[in-house]
Amino acid sequence: MISSDTTLSPGQLLARGTARHLLTYDYNCIEEFTPERGLRVDIMALGPKGQLWVVECKSSRADFQSDQKWQGYLPFCDRFFWAVDSDFPTELLPDDTGLIIADSYGAEIIRMGPDTPLPAARRKKLLQKFARTSAQRLQALRDPMAFTLP
Amino acid sequence: MISSDTTLSPGQLLARGTARHLLTYDYNCIEEFTPERGLRVDIMALGPKGQLWVVECKSSRADFQSDQKWQGYLPFCDRFFWAVDSDFPTELLPDDTGLIIADSYGAEIIRMGPDTPLPAARRKKLLQKFARTSAQRLQALRDPMAFTLP
Repeated sequence: MISSDTTLSPGQLLARGTARHLLTYDYNCIEEFTPERGLRVDIMALGPKGQLWVVECKSSRADFQSDQKWQGYLPFCDRFFWAVDSDFPTELLPDDTGLIIADSYGAEIIRMGPDTPLPAARRKKLLQKFARTSAQRLQALRDPMAFTLP
Repeated sequence: MISSDTTLSPGQLLARGTARHLLTYDYNCIEEFTPERGLRVDIMALGPKGQLWVVECKSSRADFQSDQKWQGYLPFCDRFFWAVDSDFPTELLPDDTGLIIADSYGAEIIRMGPDTPLPAARRKKLLQKFARTSAQRLQALRDPMAFTLP
């Protein structure tokens, strides 16, 4: 169980605060989700009507500037957000992306960014992968033995 | 975390063994899932192609005979199974349902039962609920504080 702050990286702490806040919008988050081979997003959030949001958590300017992949995530979500802490130089972030200011314990949505609905086939595939990934991780936490058997 | 046998009821132990076995078919299970208000199935399993199976776990003849609801689950799955232990009088179970013999640690599928594909709209709705339920339970285990905040 991830419950101690000390085991989490700065990016993971931003993810935790963001996930807590998105719960208040009735969005359920999973972290480090792979929408497609070679792509891994920090947060994939699933809304009450099946909306899929991607959030990338950036703990520093360097962390953001070394990210070469984020535009590749846009086709895999209805909305895209950055989550950064209050010290982050937000002028670096593109205007047409969503913005969340987060800390370890909570967050706030500052800017929504455009709504670019997923094509139905991709949405279905992502939803299925989200469901299977979540259920598998849940089983791994509840019954670790299930994954060590022959 | 549910890891100690002593905290689980006989039905939950059958569910655990069944979920372990279904993993070998690449089915991811969640337990005590509510497909619709007023209905709660012991296991909902999601397969690699989006198949949805319901498994009802019965620990005794009395447990089976007191179940008035199981036929109500059939419209919410592609396949329906019973999971029972090896002492259960399986002749009580309808021939046209699936059968799994389970114990606390594993299981075996004895009979598949008919394949009755879900209508697309219901499948989508169930998949979405499965995804949100799994992600929410996962977050509750990883970050219990998320659910105690105002």
